[in-house]
Amino acid sequence: MNNFRFHAYTDIRFGKDQINTLPKLLAPYGKKVLMVYGGGSIKKNGLFDKIMELLADFTVYELSGVEPNPKITSVREGVKLCKTHDIDVVLAVGGGSTIDASKVIAGGAAYDSDPWDLVTNPEKIGKVLPIVTVLTLAATGSEMNKNAVISNMETNEKLGTASHDFIPKASICDPTYLFTLPAKQTAAGTADIMSHVFEQYFQNEKRAFLTDRIAEGLLQTCINYCPIALDEPDNYEARANLMWASTLALNGLPCSGKGGAWTCHPIEHELSAYYDITHGVGLAIVTPRWFRYILNDETVGKFCEYGRNVWNITEPDAYKCANMAIDATEEFFTECGIPMTLTELGIDDSKFEIMAEKAVRFGGLANAYVPLTKEDVVSILKACL
Amino acid sequence: MNNFRFHAYTDIRFGKDQINTLPKLLAPYGKKVLMVYGGGSIKKNGLFDKIMELLADFTVYELSGVEPNPKITSVREGVKLCKTHDIDVVLAVGGGSTIDASKVIAGGAAYDSDPWDLVTNPEKIGKVLPIVTVLTLAATGSEMNKNAVISNMETNEKLGTASHDFIPKASICDPTYLFTLPAKQTAAGTADIMSHVFEQYFQNEKRAFLTDRIAEGLLQTCINYCPIALDEPDNYEARANLMWASTLALNGLPCSGKGGAWTCHPIEHELSAYYDITHGVGLAIVTPRWFRYILNDETVGKFCEYGRNVWNITEPDAYKCANMAIDATEEFFTECGIPMTLTELGIDDSKFEIMAEKAVRFGGLANAYVPLTKEDVVSILKACL
Repeated sequence: MNNFRFHAYTDIRFGKDQINTLPKLLAPYGKKVLMVYGGGSIKKNGLFDKIMELLADFTVYELSGVEPNPKITSVREGVKLCKTHDIDVVLAVGGGSTIDASKVIAGGAAYDSDPWDLVTNPEKIGKVLPIVTVLTLAATGSEMNKNAVISNMETNEKLGTASHDFIPKASICDPTYLFTLPAKQTAAGTADIMSHVFEQYFQNEKRAFLTDRIAEGLLQTCINYCPIALDEPDNYEARANLMWASTLALNGLPCSGKGGAWTCHPIEHELSAYYDITHGVGLAIVTPRWFRYILNDETVGKFCEYGRNVWNITEPDAYKCANMAIDATEEFFTECGIPMTLTELGIDDSKFEIMAEKAVRFGGLANAYVPLTKEDVVSILKACL
Repeated sequence: MNNFRFHAYTDIRFGKDQINTLPKLLAPYGKKVLMVYGGGSIKKNGLFDKIMELLADFTVYELSGVEPNPKITSVREGVKLCKTHDIDVVLAVGGGSTIDASKVIAGGAAYDSDPWDLVTNPEKIGKVLPIVTVLTLAATGSEMNKNAVISNMETNEKLGTASHDFIPKASICDPTYLFTLPAKQTAAGTADIMSHVFEQYFQNEKRAFLTDRIAEGLLQTCINYCPIALDEPDNYEARANLMWASTLALNGLPCSGKGGAWTCHPIEHELSAYYDITHGVGLAIVTPRWFRYILNDETVGKFCEYGRNVWNITEPDAYKCANMAIDATEEFFTECGIPMTLTELGIDDSKFEIMAEKAVRFGGLANAYVPLTKEDVVSILKACL
């Protein structure tokens, strides 16, 4: 079991009507709030009005229109608003994209040059404005972690950055906000949660027993409840379990004592950087191909463990058990309605070489569970067609 | 799934040699440290000297001799030291008893009357000095939670108190500190961890699926590693998993979305209050008797879930499965070397009436998983003889 630090200090307020705690959660930080949100669904479902009513004693500035795969252009706008209005606290209302953008905005507020620097070079992150979130999508876990992923479509780059101070001070997680989510977002969000767990579960450190059991519980939760949420969008139990799973899947818990570089995310980031596809869909497509590509005598035991503990597969032959688990994973995504080939998304092999080149450029894939070269990445991408 | 708040803000530094981070963890709070510890094992194993060496730039005052089932008399001494020396931060080095005492000392430092008031009436807790801990026992989870349990032997009272500000700012959890633990402390500590999980797992809220899976993972971890730690006291993997389990078992995670009053703890607190027995031993004795006492048509399903998911029992008959799970629990404690009757501890039935009376006095047991009256508690205690 590797050494680790666990410091997920976000004050989570989980459940129905927790929005009423928002003024109390913001109060310690000041009165001038930059509220960041996305395409306006919060105006349709009443959340925007509710927040404005609750924040009558605050001065609220707005940055709307943050995109899925949030763009550095939106971050720049937000930073400008922070500087112009001397903002005290950034309030992100939305899913991972909105929260990620808010983090880099909060860091950019005290940075005197282009905030894209904070994405390409996290060491440049200094003072960060406090961040509070209201979560409206179960997917990225950004509501309780230090990570942000920002895209720059001019340079076809989608990069992750991080700061301990990016961890939100508080997050309101009300599962009823998920009731109106389109099915494809429910499915893609679940694939994102599962991918976070896979990236941490499939690692070489074998002695983190408790951490692996927690990971399996997270995966079982996704497998159990995503179909229910798709059938009954207002099933509170399903939405609540998925929402809590999204938060725990990437708050440090499923990597405590494990660690190790990730695989699917760097590959998918290139797909999104070039084609702006939905992150969770890209992950769902890549995952089973990655699994099959790295299945070997060294990894078969771990895939079996996954099959037995998550899918209740009792097949005694190790390779058969492993392949059944991988097939079950792919079938699960298919049954959730996720398009499971790049071809269906209109992506051909014309950019595989450059994407693979960029996926390996920071060296992470060389330190992954099974180290991958550029050629390996091309092979995995080809299997996704 | 019930609403909940999860705010376990402790900065956990887990693993070998994390003690070296101690000066950095204390620094934000000041230079005057009250170091609280127990019977002196840290002087034998070198930890005391190591800490003194690391804290050369701090002024360290000491309170030693904090007892198992920590007494209000020790707390009073600590409070006096805080007031006399204008202490900035309380450093607890030990297990749950030392940490619990440190919490009430930290609260008592700014309270102008007897700190026992803060135990009997948590509402009186005001300002609390920052608390940092160095954990040397895997049991209570006090290193990452708001709870403290203090005993008053004059009044035969063992009472829990709590404050959000009692949560330690940081905790160093180095599994190698467990290598020299006596076997009986390893076993009793594990029983304590498992009891914390049982108290939260056996509750009426059935929709917190993810939380229940995490609880089962914690229990499997205890069952898997306690025998290994007893056989090989310096098995790092076993000690590390048990230590992390102790922290997670009572940091809010296994009750997220569940809640409900506890059962075994209020009963055991009376045993400790009258006979000063080891807390974990008392819990291990009471637990299987409690399980058998409350097994009925309403609870049998939950006991079966426990049996299937934790003990891998495949018996299809619900009551058989439940009883097998309860028997397995009792056998497990026995195999860990825990004396499993009150008689073995020299306790007879002479105080059962008064203990049962006191166990139900705050009304908690009336709201437990299966509500219990004073008579029920007497019956459970009699089954423990």
